[in-house]
Amino acid sequence: MNILFVMYDQLRFDYLSCAGHPTLQTPHFDRVAKMGVRFTKAYVQSPICGASRMSYYTGRYVSSHGAQWNGFPLRVGEITLGDHLRQAGMACWLLGKTHMKADAKGMARLGLSPDSVIGARQAECGFDAWARDDGLWGQGPDGFYDAKRSPYNEYLKSKGYDGENPWADYANAGVEGDQMASGWMFENADKPANIREEDSETPWLTSQAIDFINQAKGPWCAHVSFIKPHWPYIVPAPYHAMYGTEDIQPVQRDDRELENPHPVLAAYHDIKVADAFRKQEVRDKVIPAYMGLIKQCDDQLGRLLDHLEATDRMKDTMIVLTSDHGDYLGDHWLGEKDFFHEASVKVPMIIYDPRAEADATRGSTCDALVEAIDVAATCVDAAGGDVADHILEGRSLLPWLHGKCPKNWRQVVISEYDYSATPRAAALGVCPRDARMFMVFDGRWKLIHFEGGFRPMLFDLQCDPDEFVDLGDDPAYAGEIAVMYEHLAAWGRRMSQRVTMSDADIDANRGRSARKGILPFLVDGSEVPDALTEKYRGPVRQDYTPD
Amino acid sequence: MNILFVMYDQLRFDYLSCAGHPTLQTPHFDRVAKMGVRFTKAYVQSPICGASRMSYYTGRYVSSHGAQWNGFPLRVGEITLGDHLRQAGMACWLLGKTHMKADAKGMARLGLSPDSVIGARQAECGFDAWARDDGLWGQGPDGFYDAKRSPYNEYLKSKGYDGENPWADYANAGVEGDQMASGWMFENADKPANIREEDSETPWLTSQAIDFINQAKGPWCAHVSFIKPHWPYIVPAPYHAMYGTEDIQPVQRDDRELENPHPVLAAYHDIKVADAFRKQEVRDKVIPAYMGLIKQCDDQLGRLLDHLEATDRMKDTMIVLTSDHGDYLGDHWLGEKDFFHEASVKVPMIIYDPRAEADATRGSTCDALVEAIDVAATCVDAAGGDVADHILEGRSLLPWLHGKCPKNWRQVVISEYDYSATPRAAALGVCPRDARMFMVFDGRWKLIHFEGGFRPMLFDLQCDPDEFVDLGDDPAYAGEIAVMYEHLAAWGRRMSQRVTMSDADIDANRGRSARKGILPFLVDGSEVPDALTEKYRGPVRQDYTPD
Repeated sequence: MNILFVMYDQLRFDYLSCAGHPTLQTPHFDRVAKMGVRFTKAYVQSPICGASRMSYYTGRYVSSHGAQWNGFPLRVGEITLGDHLRQAGMACWLLGKTHMKADAKGMARLGLSPDSVIGARQAECGFDAWARDDGLWGQGPDGFYDAKRSPYNEYLKSKGYDGENPWADYANAGVEGDQMASGWMFENADKPANIREEDSETPWLTSQAIDFINQAKGPWCAHVSFIKPHWPYIVPAPYHAMYGTEDIQPVQRDDRELENPHPVLAAYHDIKVADAFRKQEVRDKVIPAYMGLIKQCDDQLGRLLDHLEATDRMKDTMIVLTSDHGDYLGDHWLGEKDFFHEASVKVPMIIYDPRAEADATRGSTCDALVEAIDVAATCVDAAGGDVADHILEGRSLLPWLHGKCPKNWRQVVISEYDYSATPRAAALGVCPRDARMFMVFDGRWKLIHFEGGFRPMLFDLQCDPDEFVDLGDDPAYAGEIAVMYEHLAAWGRRMSQRVTMSDADIDANRGRSARKGILPFLVDGSEVPDALTEKYRGPVRQDYTPD
Repeated sequence: MNILFVMYDQLRFDYLSCAGHPTLQTPHFDRVAKMGVRFTKAYVQSPICGASRMSYYTGRYVSSHGAQWNGFPLRVGEITLGDHLRQAGMACWLLGKTHMKADAKGMARLGLSPDSVIGARQAECGFDAWARDDGLWGQGPDGFYDAKRSPYNEYLKSKGYDGENPWADYANAGVEGDQMASGWMFENADKPANIREEDSETPWLTSQAIDFINQAKGPWCAHVSFIKPHWPYIVPAPYHAMYGTEDIQPVQRDDRELENPHPVLAAYHDIKVADAFRKQEVRDKVIPAYMGLIKQCDDQLGRLLDHLEATDRMKDTMIVLTSDHGDYLGDHWLGEKDFFHEASVKVPMIIYDPRAEADATRGSTCDALVEAIDVAATCVDAAGGDVADHILEGRSLLPWLHGKCPKNWRQVVISEYDYSATPRAAALGVCPRDARMFMVFDGRWKLIHFEGGFRPMLFDLQCDPDEFVDLGDDPAYAGEIAVMYEHLAAWGRRMSQRVTMSDADIDANRGRSARKGILPFLVDGSEVPDALTEKYRGPVRQDYTPD
């Protein structure tokens, strides 16, 4: 079996027709959902690209792998999906974005060259790169945001798009009169990107995926990782004009959220992107563009699915569709992601398993609490490998796909956010170490704990599914808060770093030292078989002269 | 400045005359205590050799480095004292024992050869090895416990001691008639070891240290790590006969400890070494031998100190004297270590700083809560390095040595014990992951938390300094238990794995992405200086033909 592990960036869980969006039709996402299982309660380990992805790629919580924000390097030697899959005999390829930053200092300390196969994998999160393109070719007074080469920019240049950075000048800009209208400005989101649709980012990466599949010898895992529908919010024709203000869902916000808000939330209310999304004209321009980007993703997914069918590979290819986090789009008075409301922390998770064992669940949904880290365990399980649960903290979803209810499934999901690198830390006067928050959610109660001495927040998603009412300072909920804190404490004591010894190793090694002559607790030796002590008995050695 | 970081193995905190032992005179330990500061509340991160040492050598809690028991490899790439010191311009050498097990799988994954300088450091916990000898050359039906070469056994052979394993046959055996009397059997502990005293382990390693110092160019840190007074409990003449039953302190145990004991403690009551130490004849033989071993350590320490003075190096050599854990010796109905009573988890910690800044504190004691992980931070600080507190979880003790009271000193110490590799896990029916316990101690209350669904234990060391009364199931102490659990939970949420980004890195990087062209939150660009947006403005690009 092969695995197509497709990730979208910043795709909200509810912007798919199979997930209930009333006007955005995504027939190809729906088609995979009909062939597989749609998990309705899938949460990322951090609502920010880099940290979330490092959790997907390591199968470990953010506090376990330590790459807590964008650009925080993943420590050298951290074991990845690629390591696990190669051990199980499956190649593991990257097409598109990882947001990985290599641990250059750590690699230098270990003498690893980025040019070696081993070094390149360390530098690319365990993947072998078919085409790596992180998709944000921002350029400012201090140069490019991303110093790596951009296969996508090279592609555009090869197609005749001129200039140093056609990603910015064509794929992410429209036209206003005779001037570029950059997609960075929300006011330009309604314009068509100044590019042939087939040359835009999503079709380009889809073509890369098709090229990859055409030449690949199995078994393979291909991580096809789209930058879209992530900002810049601008999309080529005809997608720019497919949706209008009538397609915009009512904004999910409430005046109560602004009354005496939690100080950290208040800091998030008080930033540029939140301001922008409070303007009706921003939502009116951005959301149709965002929907257009998703529609383009869906069409390109259709192209990929059709190719799998045409090449008879649908029968032996598992498909995972997910995202690294959502997008507030103005909900809760916020933009972007970075906090723990459902719009941000919950993601689509659709998995198709081609094997007969999964026939019974096709087209169903599963409401179990699922975490992003489960994807790595699922891939290893699907590849026939042993899920090394002393390293991988997620759990395989295959039992759910096969209609079984796994024992002792998790009671809570955990998500984390480190805002130390953001101006919010400075605004709140919080030191980098304390600029961390944790979400614990059991399906009903969502607790948010903040380091740095703040009170917690609490939402009751059963009575308040819109998450408008923060109960965190209401003494009536002290009991619920205490229970959620117990869950968080148990998670804090988890065994996350004993990665060099499996449970099986431990069981197998138990008691072996006695057979290697470690006999510390004998009174006279009669306590154990003679074989264990024979090395310590016999005529006295006398080949030296005592003083 | 140089650093002599001396570790003894299994040396109880109270078996020194400066710490109050009534009959065991240790004038040389006392001499360092008079020159420096004796920390009276120093606790190890785990009361077992391997895990404790990995915490000393990484400056990190056991759950942070993951090498949770003897023989559990320290994960490749884990940053060690040696890495920190070399970065500060100080060499870091090993003489003696580390109990390090290399992560051979991890090294192979990263292509590191154990023969390379980098590989050898990875395999030896970051040290450069002057002489590595882990000191336990046990040999049984399955061969040697330790597959490495033994410089000490080679030394003995060069001195004419014959046979395959003179460590066992001479250094750790006495004579009974014409038969070897192995030191493994407690009944032989009163016999003199069948070896010239100057060839026994402690003098041998002391000579190695003197040789090292004689040739070393500074600045250096030398970890001189003795296997003694660790078992086998046997010592050469004249030390075997220096102490008698009159020197044995009253056993610290109480019948109340056997009434309805905590199930995990009961499992420890029920093992061979506990049985053995309940026999008066075992204590009568072992404890005088243990004291003799310590007395020999003290004499050899004197030799080392005299050498420093004779070579005028006392003025620029910091000295740290400590141990990896204690020894129950029958207290609390237990033998060995492996649990959290003071006899096991508290260690000697004496530090001499030769510099004038430390003059005010010479000969004093310090009652602050100190952890083993503080030693690494102290060494880095003493070497003039920046203490990388995103990696090192301990804190420098230099302020205490210099008569300052550091701000926000820790309120609790944490120690951990993973018993998954012991038969206790099987006896209790606990899976490897749940066979873990945690101690939280604030100077008065000592809470022991057990994974696996057991109740906690609680001792009040103010009212019950002997730790005879377990209050863990007394509802009257629910409040104290809750407070200690809050400390444990806060520790569980600590930031332990963000090792690739310092706080200073984070502060320095904040806000840089805008200057590299990441401008996601602009309505029309007027929100920021023109310089940030100039790359995104200008005449429209037209070097392609839209469809």
